[in-house]
Amino acid sequence: MQQLIRGIHQFQTEDFRPLATLFEQLAERQSPETLFITCSDSRIDPNLLTRSRPGDLFILRNAGNIIPLAGGTTSGEVATIEYAVGALGVKDIIVCGHTHCGAMKGLLHPESLTELPAVAGWLEHAATTRRIVTDHYGHLPEDRKLVAAIEENVLVQLEHLRTLPVVASRLRRGDLHLHGWVYKIETGEVFAYDLETQAFVAIAEHAVNGDAEGARRRAATGI
Amino acid sequence: MQQLIRGIHQFQTEDFRPLATLFEQLAERQSPETLFITCSDSRIDPNLLTRSRPGDLFILRNAGNIIPLAGGTTSGEVATIEYAVGALGVKDIIVCGHTHCGAMKGLLHPESLTELPAVAGWLEHAATTRRIVTDHYGHLPEDRKLVAAIEENVLVQLEHLRTLPVVASRLRRGDLHLHGWVYKIETGEVFAYDLETQAFVAIAEHAVNGDAEGARRRAATGI
Amino acid sequence: MQQLIRGIHQFQTEDFRPLATLFEQLAERQSPETLFITCSDSRIDPNLLTRSRPGDLFILRNAGNIIPLAGGTTSGEVATIEYAVGALGVKDIIVCGHTHCGAMKGLLHPESLTELPAVAGWLEHAATTRRIVTDHYGHLPEDRKLVAAIEENVLVQLEHLRTLPVVASRLRRGDLHLHGWVYKIETGEVFAYDLETQAFVAIAEHAVNGDAEGARRRAATGI
Amino acid sequence: MQQLIRGIHQFQTEDFRPLATLFEQLAERQSPETLFITCSDSRIDPNLLTRSRPGDLFILRNAGNIIPLAGGTTSGEVATIEYAVGALGVKDIIVCGHTHCGAMKGLLHPESLTELPAVAGWLEHAATTRRIVTDHYGHLPEDRKLVAAIEENVLVQLEHLRTLPVVASRLRRGDLHLHGWVYKIETGEVFAYDLETQAFVAIAEHAVNGDAEGARRRAATGI
Amino acid sequence: MQQLIRGIHQFQTEDFRPLATLFEQLAERQSPETLFITCSDSRIDPNLLTRSRPGDLFILRNAGNIIPLAGGTTSGEVATIEYAVGALGVKDIIVCGHTHCGAMKGLLHPESLTELPAVAGWLEHAATTRRIVTDHYGHLPEDRKLVAAIEENVLVQLEHLRTLPVVASRLRRGDLHLHGWVYKIETGEVFAYDLETQAFVAIAEHAVNGDAEGARRRAATGI
Amino acid sequence: MQQLIRGIHQFQTEDFRPLATLFEQLAERQSPETLFITCSDSRIDPNLLTRSRPGDLFILRNAGNIIPLAGGTTSGEVATIEYAVGALGVKDIIVCGHTHCGAMKGLLHPESLTELPAVAGWLEHAATTRRIVTDHYGHLPEDRKLVAAIEENVLVQLEHLRTLPVVASRLRRGDLHLHGWVYKIETGEVFAYDLETQAFVAIAEHAVNGDAEGARRRAATGI
Ligand SMILES: [Zn+2]
Ligand SMILES: [Zn+2]
Ligand SMILES: [Zn+2]
Ligand SMILES: [Zn+2]
Ligand SMILES: [Zn+2]
Ligand SMILES: [Zn+2]
Repeated sequence: MQQLIRGIHQFQTEDFRPLATLFEQLAERQSPETLFITCSDSRIDPNLLTRSRPGDLFILRNAGNIIPLAGGTTSGEVATIEYAVGALGVKDIIVCGHTHCGAMKGLLHPESLTELPAVAGWLEHAATTRRIVTDHYGHLPEDRKLVAAIEENVLVQLEHLRTLPVVASRLRRGDLHLHGWVYKIETGEVFAYDLETQAFVAIAEHAVNGDAEGARRRAATGI
Repeated sequence: MQQLIRGIHQFQTEDFRPLATLFEQLAERQSPETLFITCSDSRIDPNLLTRSRPGDLFILRNAGNIIPLAGGTTSGEVATIEYAVGALGVKDIIVCGHTHCGAMKGLLHPESLTELPAVAGWLEHAATTRRIVTDHYGHLPEDRKLVAAIEENVLVQLEHLRTLPVVASRLRRGDLHLHGWVYKIETGEVFAYDLETQAFVAIAEHAVNGDAEGARRRAATGI
Repeated sequence: MQQLIRGIHQFQTEDFRPLATLFEQLAERQSPETLFITCSDSRIDPNLLTRSRPGDLFILRNAGNIIPLAGGTTSGEVATIEYAVGALGVKDIIVCGHTHCGAMKGLLHPESLTELPAVAGWLEHAATTRRIVTDHYGHLPEDRKLVAAIEENVLVQLEHLRTLPVVASRLRRGDLHLHGWVYKIETGEVFAYDLETQAFVAIAEHAVNGDAEGARRRAATGI
Repeated sequence: MQQLIRGIHQFQTEDFRPLATLFEQLAERQSPETLFITCSDSRIDPNLLTRSRPGDLFILRNAGNIIPLAGGTTSGEVATIEYAVGALGVKDIIVCGHTHCGAMKGLLHPESLTELPAVAGWLEHAATTRRIVTDHYGHLPEDRKLVAAIEENVLVQLEHLRTLPVVASRLRRGDLHLHGWVYKIETGEVFAYDLETQAFVAIAEHAVNGDAEGARRRAATGI
Repeated sequence: MQQLIRGIHQFQTEDFRPLATLFEQLAERQSPETLFITCSDSRIDPNLLTRSRPGDLFILRNAGNIIPLAGGTTSGEVATIEYAVGALGVKDIIVCGHTHCGAMKGLLHPESLTELPAVAGWLEHAATTRRIVTDHYGHLPEDRKLVAAIEENVLVQLEHLRTLPVVASRLRRGDLHLHGWVYKIETGEVFAYDLETQAFVAIAEHAVNGDAEGARRRAATGI
Repeated sequence: MQQLIRGIHQFQTEDFRPLATLFEQLAERQSPETLFITCSDSRIDPNLLTRSRPGDLFILRNAGNIIPLAGGTTSGEVATIEYAVGALGVKDIIVCGHTHCGAMKGLLHPESLTELPAVAGWLEHAATTRRIVTDHYGHLPEDRKLVAAIEENVLVQLEHLRTLPVVASRLRRGDLHLHGWVYKIETGEVFAYDLETQAFVAIAEHAVNGDAEGARRRAATGI
């Protein structure tokens, strides 16, 4: 805590000055172009890994980068997405999973969650991920199965995203694009789901990957 | 989108190298000491404003930095907090609101949310904030009322936090601490709720503010 | 009622005899290949219009041929589909809307539902349909708007269907196929959604329409 | 699938002609007098077994002919019933179970439902049926116990039906009647619950059974 | 508050002595024969009006003596009834409404509940009562309509009660009895629903009213 | 039942007369100053133990004196409290647990609740109590653990109470006070939570205990 306080002090005395004009403008209004949905994991810093500045990314984070379906009680996830699309008019939505995800480990090992009943309940929103991994990757060794779960979960949550009224309607108009990413902590690489090859492929500067809207998933082998 | 791709490229070629060892260690396991709960607003970068490094902050973000009570369906918020406290053993939880919050504006102006039904539903988890503002700040001009809503909401959500089983039990043991912050976008200042004065006061390097656990709210005037 | 009793009597004395062997076999077990989901509307008789025999179609019917997302309380729809796919192993699922659908009229005219609160609540599972019609067909005359709602709703409910764990996993394996149909009461015609042309086209004997799995909806003009 | 397409073709070329006038009239509006609630089971064809024509029966079908109580989230069942009674003004509601019902087998053998979690959740709306069977028929051999479950479930779901506001109010006025039926697949017989004898008795042409509104259940032995 | 403290003191010094033996026995275990469900209204004292002693009545009280249907989230009402019937084995359940009930006034005047959203939500469990009053007593003057609402609500809640698994099963066995009462504050009279006359009649010592299990409601005119 | 009827007769012929004037006044309106929340246990008579008269106490009772958090479906508890505070303007709320509470026994022994699923579900609203007892009192013998559960549960439910909008807002104004009590059946004593000593202490006439609003719980040893 002491360290965070010191950090705030340093931010104010050293970092804020050059950003002062930006922040003054932003105080008037934000107009981010991208909604970035990722895990709460402390090892992910969306602004760092995309070199974004304040005002660039509207960010939604929870354990497992999960998006509950809209059919039940209104969730913070659905509300936040509705706000980003309906009120702020973002143009791109990125769902970004990551390697070594604790939530995905829990999904594959429900027996480890007896002391974490709320986590267990929450992961039911990734039941489709679990079923796909069980049905199609059951033969893989543990670490490969985890990678499969991480990748498949990004695709499953994109499907959930598509069912939101405001998202579904904007997709029809063609001015909203969905992207499925996986961040590899140990190398700093980012993989994007590629519709052509139906696999996650490393993002390279010259090859911007198309959106994953119509994603039909067959393979999941990139990482 | 193109810009994000470029950013990733620059991150990988320029920023990752010096952090490579840290990321390799982190790939083994994360052990953040702090859970940072804040708004999805694009103008907030928790790592920037606290000068934190990857691995330091477990971060939960949604529209309005709201924490639903545990009484209903399992929410992502409750699950993420349970994971942070029960599985990762964080020692501090910060709930950080911010000036010019669109969610708080919506809370005070429900009539602006007719096209955003999920947002309207979500803000019911801040119904106590709204009631307190209506009952006690109704006479204030609009901008002061918004500041009051932002501050009161931080305190209300801290109360919600206290009702989680894992949080309530750890608070009893005394090894978990709750903090209420408000980030002022236009100046870069961070205000923390101070139990003594029952007000939000600017965080200064030499004066680390105590935790807000027993917070009894009377005044809300700091910003 | 009297007429139904007479009908049962006639069925037993006249119709049952030729079907006796079939029914005896069916008493052992059912093994339908198709799950037929349609509206409760009295003008639709799935067995009549497909000339199916007892044992052929597993049939789910409700007002509006709606499939709630799995995110909330377990619905009869989700359970029935899970049973059809997971326990009976059906190979095809048809979602069949119909012209002059009262539920779709109610969806476009919520003001007509004040005395029918449960219907109003139920139609929230077609909120995406309503939003698409409002955003993209708002300029059409009433009767064309109703046709659009009927067609779009079939596609929206297919999207809902895709999010069920058991369905999503079977789609991956490729041995389950989804179909979107609209039945035109006044002519007896059946229209199927066609992926190529992205429109509903009349089913003809020689041209079996492919499945609508990856349906990306642009046009909806067939009827 | 191919066969269904052929069926549609035959229906259009052969069956539709004689029904054309009826269908044209029905296109204007439906006015069914009966709401028929039955299982999704492929072996039941309500129109066949009552020799009904298009327009006669408003039909609600799900796994187990179950009617959730109105106390929770709005279900398709409650909405469909509200529409039938409140908007269409049906005069009779039939809840029709059937022999060899897979849902009822699942109810008595929850251990068979581990791979069908949605079915297991759904059958909680028949918890009263299970409790009655356990408490009062526990001593019976398996096949008799199944028949008891099927019969009792019809009566339990009729009780659920009675709690709907629109149904309860219409029952008071006396112009809505409830009926409990069981269809015996292997013989084509239909049994109706008889208030006098408090048992299910075979429907015969000359003896129209009264309604089961006040049903106090003691015996269940007809099948 | 001061007065309650004084009351406790007097209870301890004056009233407890003669009850000491009873309370010592009761400390071992309670075995009440009756579950008494009534409104939270301060003017009702179930023990006073039935001259019951500690240990006699298991008492459930809420605003409006309402029993939510079991179809939704587990309510305190359903749990308390299950405990009374399943664990304590009570033999009689009394649902006791009362004249001048504020909850029933709110039910008839929803416009008076804008500042009481939780009350408004809660009264949805009496939606059937409201519908019956609207449909069948709409022509009555306000005070008669309120009496009708109070009486009808007792009958509606008894219907809700009948749908609980543990209650339904015990009713079948015949060793549980349901009673509908209305307490008239201004005269101290208690009226019980009488199956024969289908009306609420004053309870007289020599005429113990039968149970209201099969209650078919036609008239409601006693008070 | 016969005895209750006799009791009513005696109440009317003997007890009502001296209270007639009071009841006539009360028929006009109730204005209780206190909301008394306690268990449904038959051994508790709130009016007896506080020597209160009709009109003094607005009483909410359920198994375990539990107050669900407001985050889910509207509960009778939340509605009743809202009515007491918002419509009647009570000045004090007492949550009163008691020794030998069956609900608290069930909370500590979930394995005893397999036949009581609704009770098990209901006790989830006391999950924080269970967690605190497990974490901090696990070493105690069974009877001491039960006392700890009873005391801690009163404090946990007070925390739930504090999260209701109407309660939170009134607490801010300072004209609503919360009290935590435990009633000892075997001795007739009443213990109140004391903020100073952070323990439950016997209520004595001359020492009125302050309210438990800011209750920070450390010890629980009074009984
Ligand atoms: Zn993660
Ligand atoms: Zn904000
Ligand atoms: Zn329809
Ligand atoms: Zn069946
Ligand atoms: Zn009342
Ligand atoms: Zn108790």
